[in-house]
Amino acid sequence: MKISNIDLSNYPNSQKIYVTGKIYPEIRVAMRQIKQYPTVTIVDGKRHEEPNEPITVYDTSGQFTDPDCVTDINEGLPRIRQEWIEQRGDTKELKELTSDYGRQRLADKSLDSIRFPKLHSPKVAKEGKRVTQMHYARRGEITPEMEYVAIRENLDNEARGIETYITPKFVRDEIAAGRAIIPANINHPEAEPMIIGRAFSVKLNTNIGNSALSSGIEEEVAKAVWSCYWGGDTLMDLSTGDNIHETREWIIRNCPVPVGTVPIYQALEKVDGDVSQLTWEIYRDTLIEQCEQGVDYFTIHAGVLHEHAKYVGQRLTGCVSRGGSIMTQWCVIHNSENFLYTHFDEICEILNRYDVAVSLGDGMRPGSTHDANDHCQFLELDVLGELTEKAWAHDVQVLIEGPGHVPMNKIAVNMERQLKSCHEAPFYTLGPITTDIAPGYDHITSAIGAANIATLGTAMICYVTPKEHLSLPNLEDVREGVIAYKIAAHAADIAKGFPGATIRDDALSKARYEFRWKDQFNLSLDPEKARRFYMESRRNAPDADDRFCTMCGPNFCAMRISQNIESKCKD
Amino acid sequence: MKISNIDLSNYPNSQKIYVTGKIYPEIRVAMRQIKQYPTVTIVDGKRHEEPNEPITVYDTSGQFTDPDCVTDINEGLPRIRQEWIEQRGDTKELKELTSDYGRQRLADKSLDSIRFPKLHSPKVAKEGKRVTQMHYARRGEITPEMEYVAIRENLDNEARGIETYITPKFVRDEIAAGRAIIPANINHPEAEPMIIGRAFSVKLNTNIGNSALSSGIEEEVAKAVWSCYWGGDTLMDLSTGDNIHETREWIIRNCPVPVGTVPIYQALEKVDGDVSQLTWEIYRDTLIEQCEQGVDYFTIHAGVLHEHAKYVGQRLTGCVSRGGSIMTQWCVIHNSENFLYTHFDEICEILNRYDVAVSLGDGMRPGSTHDANDHCQFLELDVLGELTEKAWAHDVQVLIEGPGHVPMNKIAVNMERQLKSCHEAPFYTLGPITTDIAPGYDHITSAIGAANIATLGTAMICYVTPKEHLSLPNLEDVREGVIAYKIAAHAADIAKGFPGATIRDDALSKARYEFRWKDQFNLSLDPEKARRFYMESRRNAPDADDRFCTMCGPNFCAMRISQNIESKCKD
Repeated sequence: MKISNIDLSNYPNSQKIYVTGKIYPEIRVAMRQIKQYPTVTIVDGKRHEEPNEPITVYDTSGQFTDPDCVTDINEGLPRIRQEWIEQRGDTKELKELTSDYGRQRLADKSLDSIRFPKLHSPKVAKEGKRVTQMHYARRGEITPEMEYVAIRENLDNEARGIETYITPKFVRDEIAAGRAIIPANINHPEAEPMIIGRAFSVKLNTNIGNSALSSGIEEEVAKAVWSCYWGGDTLMDLSTGDNIHETREWIIRNCPVPVGTVPIYQALEKVDGDVSQLTWEIYRDTLIEQCEQGVDYFTIHAGVLHEHAKYVGQRLTGCVSRGGSIMTQWCVIHNSENFLYTHFDEICEILNRYDVAVSLGDGMRPGSTHDANDHCQFLELDVLGELTEKAWAHDVQVLIEGPGHVPMNKIAVNMERQLKSCHEAPFYTLGPITTDIAPGYDHITSAIGAANIATLGTAMICYVTPKEHLSLPNLEDVREGVIAYKIAAHAADIAKGFPGATIRDDALSKARYEFRWKDQFNLSLDPEKARRFYMESRRNAPDADDRFCTMCGPNFCAMRISQNIESKCKD
Repeated sequence: MKISNIDLSNYPNSQKIYVTGKIYPEIRVAMRQIKQYPTVTIVDGKRHEEPNEPITVYDTSGQFTDPDCVTDINEGLPRIRQEWIEQRGDTKELKELTSDYGRQRLADKSLDSIRFPKLHSPKVAKEGKRVTQMHYARRGEITPEMEYVAIRENLDNEARGIETYITPKFVRDEIAAGRAIIPANINHPEAEPMIIGRAFSVKLNTNIGNSALSSGIEEEVAKAVWSCYWGGDTLMDLSTGDNIHETREWIIRNCPVPVGTVPIYQALEKVDGDVSQLTWEIYRDTLIEQCEQGVDYFTIHAGVLHEHAKYVGQRLTGCVSRGGSIMTQWCVIHNSENFLYTHFDEICEILNRYDVAVSLGDGMRPGSTHDANDHCQFLELDVLGELTEKAWAHDVQVLIEGPGHVPMNKIAVNMERQLKSCHEAPFYTLGPITTDIAPGYDHITSAIGAANIATLGTAMICYVTPKEHLSLPNLEDVREGVIAYKIAAHAADIAKGFPGATIRDDALSKARYEFRWKDQFNLSLDPEKARRFYMESRRNAPDADDRFCTMCGPNFCAMRISQNIESKCKD
């Protein structure tokens, strides 16, 4: 199997570097360093060169972009966390899968052709142990994962003399307080640790997944790698079609970032889409199946209650969360309380044995700006707050999912209420989309909302592609969606005053002012597109080295005139 | 001559309607009405149809989209304001052009082949008269232009029972106070009146213009029509290449929206790009040349002063305004004060004889987020405030141009200081771009900033296309830029609580919830793209009538499940 259709050579003049730990010298945090050309000036006919230092940027692309490594997706990525997990001595290897379904699939020979070839035995906590990062943090321990993310967040700030508050201790304390999480299933040791919390850089999640109508395994793995390559910090596999189990294995084994799922989707597949047939037992088996594959966080719609169902009909667009609508329908059919709510303690007891974080789903998120901030939405938010405390009692790490569709004037109150109701657990929002009138451009309608809510404190934003509401995204859509969200996240980092956030902006602006076109491209989020756009109008020019661009032409370049003014004013 | 390469049939199921005036029954305000399909439900096996009323939207596309009219671009658009202007009795027709340059161009037979064929004699105010909308407003008059824009802003709010504060009197009072402008040169009677002010819907400006390196007349006219077609409210012709004069004539005669220019660009062409040779006389002649062609507003960089030049070198990216850098260089070369500043009263005396609005250019706008809100920028803003009062003393309508590149946390202070320094004259900003690291995606980096600053009170936002910083936009880039800015403007209208702003959102969301796909496309800002994206994954389906989409597939549609819940809860 090859990831045939994706091009991983779009970052010219970049170099993979690794920064080692101080507490844990075996830690090697990958970063990308973008080299720059020197600034050239001609003074009195002589050429002077002033070097421009390389710029270090956060790197989510994994080993795929390390030219010194060969990644065979049939082998999967190296298991960088394996030793750290084993050294803690609180886990054991399982002889066989715990999940009935998992065992069935494994025994089914007809699936051999699509099965990931090098399966590993799953781990689980030893009896009575909790193996979550929150558990360790509360005990006062700094894990390798915690030092890893501290290094990762800081990039080369220390070398630049930029003060930062992000130390391994600070990371530990934020996790202990529930204000940040490191999604890190012990069965996904391939993932490079990352942190989600409002004191840290804003993260972005991407969604992939086949539906019944399209996509196959190979395409999904390629999409996963592709979305990490462009900057996705976490990845949700939202598959609802055939072979979910096998597809997921391929994705997790090759995914350098934490993977999330919505287990109810697969549980529903197991009962052939008949909501009435869903049971706690089927769901529970699905949870364990996925815990043992290595899913790092689960979206669980435990906050939609039976009594909320009556509000659905009062909305313009009802319930637009798949999981939320499934659970609500189940409550109505059975005239019973949501089994995810009633079994929440049991769920947490499962999750803390693998360190799977819970992402409390917002089943009642508004599906239109009209429904934003309504009674139903905030009623559920309060339940999520109650569940947060329950999860924390089990040392389970928590994310809170948020809207959705929200006009700009109604965004701030979402953040305020979330912080209050959910005790400062990290917020993770889908956009929000700020106007409903632009299908085909919802990466933009939502990047506006995402930038705003992230500036106010949302820790992770879930990307939206141009195909939202219309169709499944292809590779180009994924790229467009990721870049739009990298923009939103970065704009928020700058606005929040995140340490070192402006370094890349300033370097790119300096390159722009000095007509170092190649550096301008290379420092950008999408060097290939920037270069392509530039070259489109410079077909006769062999290379990007002109001291003007086609927007203004050679005679009207403000920046060149401006440099003349500078030198005149210095005379 | 034909506008060959643009397709003006992208709004299916839409109808051009005209609303007539009450004070002036001859007024016919064009709007676009989007018809909808009925909501179909099956109850007890019987089909029920519930009609959905048409949605009326603001229409900037001009006569080009009226199937009952044939527009010959060699004739130009109908001169809808001609009679209103003549009936005021304060203007006279000129026997010949006032501008020396204009007369030279007219006399040059070699230009006949590219000259607009049906030139009109220009008008000017009678001796001692001021013919600006501000002048009339201050005299207490409600002009047809004022009633026109009041109708235009309100769409069908009255029929819907939506209360609105926007009456012709309110329009008059906002213009009299300088808080809003109607750019309406007496020599551009083809333009459909529109208003720019923070009490009104947020407007967006588009830029077109050939540079020395590309584009021709036909392409520029097509681009102008195209940008209006997608939603541009005003159009700046920033041409700097050959035949600017003739290109501009073609554009103005065929442009249904107000046209702006930066006269210093052409003045510089007249001295072959040699800034040192620029004089007040050349500039003055250029102003008059363009006043008599019908330009509706001029960007004038009168606020960059000689003493500001020393700050340029202190910035990361100097001065990135073309006009600003030209004038600063002129000040430095001549060791003199900016002649646009010293002659500002004379400029206003010219402008009020044609009703050309002045858009006070921000020559010192930041060209990088690093330079945002610096001393230099705000120093100029205070000068713009001083010039605003001068212009108002001459009854000249004023816009204030704003940045540029501004991180999100520094946007609000821009608005606050502008309102205070410039006495609430309408603010007109370029973006702002909120991070510098995404060339190729600056329509997004800046739509985020534009939506924010517009929500805070900016009256008009100047679009940025994906090609910003890289190249001249082509037709597709113009479309992407306009839609990104329609999104920003509309998101701001909703956030501001503009009367009726949510009607279209609600209608589209209802259509989405009811699986009325065609209505969802037709109500969107770009129906062609929305439909294309949907159909891409539905190649086997002949038409858009499924009760699900490929994102979730038929089994997992939250909206359908939600409708089941609704009906269940009703039982």
